[in-house]
Amino acid sequence: MAVAQALGSAQRILITSHRSPDGDALGSELALWEACSQLGKQAWVVNRDPHPPSLSFLPHLDRILVVDQVPAWLLEQTDLVVFLECPGSDRPGFPELLTKPLVNVDHHLDNPQYGAVNYLDPQAPAVGEMLLAVVDAAGVRLSPSMATCLYTALVTDTGDFRYANTTARAFAAAQRLVEAGAQPAVIAEALNDHVPERVVRLQAMVLATLEMLAQGRVAVITCTAEMLKQAQAQPQDTEDMVNLPRAIDGVRVAVFFKALTPGAVRVSLRSKGSINVQALAATFGGGGHENAAGLTFVGSLEQARAHLLPKVCQLVESA
Amino acid sequence: MAVAQALGSAQRILITSHRSPDGDALGSELALWEACSQLGKQAWVVNRDPHPPSLSFLPHLDRILVVDQVPAWLLEQTDLVVFLECPGSDRPGFPELLTKPLVNVDHHLDNPQYGAVNYLDPQAPAVGEMLLAVVDAAGVRLSPSMATCLYTALVTDTGDFRYANTTARAFAAAQRLVEAGAQPAVIAEALNDHVPERVVRLQAMVLATLEMLAQGRVAVITCTAEMLKQAQAQPQDTEDMVNLPRAIDGVRVAVFFKALTPGAVRVSLRSKGSINVQALAATFGGGGHENAAGLTFVGSLEQARAHLLPKVCQLVESA
Repeated sequence: MAVAQALGSAQRILITSHRSPDGDALGSELALWEACSQLGKQAWVVNRDPHPPSLSFLPHLDRILVVDQVPAWLLEQTDLVVFLECPGSDRPGFPELLTKPLVNVDHHLDNPQYGAVNYLDPQAPAVGEMLLAVVDAAGVRLSPSMATCLYTALVTDTGDFRYANTTARAFAAAQRLVEAGAQPAVIAEALNDHVPERVVRLQAMVLATLEMLAQGRVAVITCTAEMLKQAQAQPQDTEDMVNLPRAIDGVRVAVFFKALTPGAVRVSLRSKGSINVQALAATFGGGGHENAAGLTFVGSLEQARAHLLPKVCQLVESA
Repeated sequence: MAVAQALGSAQRILITSHRSPDGDALGSELALWEACSQLGKQAWVVNRDPHPPSLSFLPHLDRILVVDQVPAWLLEQTDLVVFLECPGSDRPGFPELLTKPLVNVDHHLDNPQYGAVNYLDPQAPAVGEMLLAVVDAAGVRLSPSMATCLYTALVTDTGDFRYANTTARAFAAAQRLVEAGAQPAVIAEALNDHVPERVVRLQAMVLATLEMLAQGRVAVITCTAEMLKQAQAQPQDTEDMVNLPRAIDGVRVAVFFKALTPGAVRVSLRSKGSINVQALAATFGGGGHENAAGLTFVGSLEQARAHLLPKVCQLVESA
């Protein structure tokens, strides 16, 4: 395998991934770091952004260098660079690395093969799962700490085995990682133990706005700038909240109004089954997928509601 | 295998499980019903309680007879009874069945082997997983609908692969079930799409009471009878809510006061790591485990808070 050969021929290997690293990025980086160390290589992990608190249990985290630029001494030494889970070569935020021999390991469909060596597999549930093949080809022993890193990559990228990439192959990898020492219950608890207090406070306020329309088939929640301020929260703390009203029994469309900046309202739409919210979002200049779309409405919250909600109710009533 | 032999020798098979059937109970019953049908047997599923709305996507649900008593005509015909996931023979709520030859399939540690044939495996992640061995021994083809039922049993009993019973064996079963046609993402969405509106409304009210004590290491939430009334909710709708404050970053102990009946307060305690809330609960006449305990305080909410909260804060401060 070309990736294992490239690792074998190199002496000083720099590993990186995309900005705002997630479980697959960090788990893959740290497992590969350990694999390189086992092979007797010098290896570094370099990231632009720190790890999220939920991933602070990962082994070897102290090995990661978080910097705005790769230090000159390190760049000079490096004879191989590995990009993990980066659908574009700009994703790590280190243009200085592009002068080096590059290995590109990714599972995104649109990866343009920017590496000297490219190992791409859009069928892979996570890049962490692809690294099992790299580890095997390189003759590295899968240690408990590597298994913990790769299991974390897998479980986060499949959304606790709930997303569509939860294939038979994902479960085969999970089985192997558990046999190698990964502990699913311990990892799940560590991952889920770091909800910021402000998110819980904001969630209470946003859920208190719940409105049910169209005989319970449309659920509406709202977040205002005042709520954000009161909860000391940030706009990104509202992420995923639209899934709470969406999960209500009988709901076909969930609408989330985010009136966070004066004069504009961000609207998230989620639907079930054959109800197409993308088409509705498009009539307001927005986009997305059939069951998940968004748009920005220029105007007040009241205007956004007056324009949008009758159309949403019409949509579920004609479905 | 004795269970497969018993099924093979019988002609008319009655399948049941415990009252308030969950995913493992229903998934196992319906998969076994299909297996018996494939073997050319007449089979019935009989339950005391209806299925929860979250499981209404399961195939063959219309085959279940929900009754307070097994009808005489059916009891007469039956030549074999299968109890699934029942740690005691009283669990289905059909004492009339105990006169029949009984097969007992369960994964609870304390099952007293009440059957004529007992297939017990406390290592099994779910009874649904044990049925794979039964199906194989009986020479039944694992159909997509059976795989859907057994995957549902597995995913619900392991808490989306997050509980301690998420073993390598659980993932091996998951892989096989997906290969046989189970669709994890479709099943996950169906399972999670049935939150009652009242639960979301109650959650908003309860989360709004969040208090942080002991420098963020103790999180307290409260539910009153008024909240329950306002949300049109029931006491059992508060189940699992204590896990929300428990998941807050930095929290070591979560306390949930439920003041639902006059003169008594039910208190749930959850802790992380080595903090023992069972010992604390015991001093108030309660019980549980080291990290999950409960007690009933006789008195008002104010009295319960005044007695308990200083002790909880002391506990985390001495930890």
